[in-house]
Amino acid sequence: MIMSEKIGILALGHGSKHPHNKDVVTGVAELIAKKYSNVVVRTGFMNMNSPTMKEGLDAFQGTGVSTIVAVPIFLAHGVHTMEDIPQILGISRETRRTTIKIDGRDVTLIYSEPLGTDELIADLAFRRAKEALLAD
Amino acid sequence: MIMSEKIGILALGHGSKHPHNKDVVTGVAELIAKKYSNVVVRTGFMNMNSPTMKEGLDAFQGTGVSTIVAVPIFLAHGVHTMEDIPQILGISRETRRTTIKIDGRDVTLIYSEPLGTDELIADLAFRRAKEALLAD
Repeated sequence: MIMSEKIGILALGHGSKHPHNKDVVTGVAELIAKKYSNVVVRTGFMNMNSPTMKEGLDAFQGTGVSTIVAVPIFLAHGVHTMEDIPQILGISRETRRTTIKIDGRDVTLIYSEPLGTDELIADLAFRRAKEALLAD
Repeated sequence: MIMSEKIGILALGHGSKHPHNKDVVTGVAELIAKKYSNVVVRTGFMNMNSPTMKEGLDAFQGTGVSTIVAVPIFLAHGVHTMEDIPQILGISRETRRTTIKIDGRDVTLIYSEPLGTDELIADLAFRRAKEALLAD
């Protein structure tokens, strides 16, 4: 990771007819932007919410990013992360990267893994259980 | 949270035709059980995987738990967490609790919030982005 480049993160959300999925993906993106202020963070949703993923990529115009990492804010791989999203982003599932044009310049778009199994998820799930018990 | 009671956690998963959702929910449940060894942890899936949520509740037989917290290992609320799962568990969305029988005894079943917006999710998403950049 060449920290001299300007890096963008596109937080990818599933989308929902209810507001909660967009709220969480947007809230997580805001937390990343606040904590890692050298990174340009945008969001894009697969369906039912805006911005779409393509609109999310367009939202890096004028930011000067040279690389964008698209991070699925999904717990696990599935049809959406393995088939739908690579197709939307035009990313090969083998190379997990492509080159797109932003402001007429070549920008590398890299597709990351979803959240996956991690102690941070276990800690958060345990905290939710404790909160429910304490509210009892 | 009366720590003298024996507490169970039922990690609720969406389920998938791919193995990844079950792998993550099961992996998170194992991390909770390892880190918080005084808690009895089981899993249950909404669809496409076993154990089902009802089978997950049955799996607390013989454990002596007096309270079970059902924790949706979902990022955000949606139709599944607000409608489908409360119906499967027989939990009122208002009281978020019910009483079930396990080994002939009354056991309190409490429904927790899903993971939601949290700095832990932001940190994990940022780490996935960094890993994708470093693998580049």
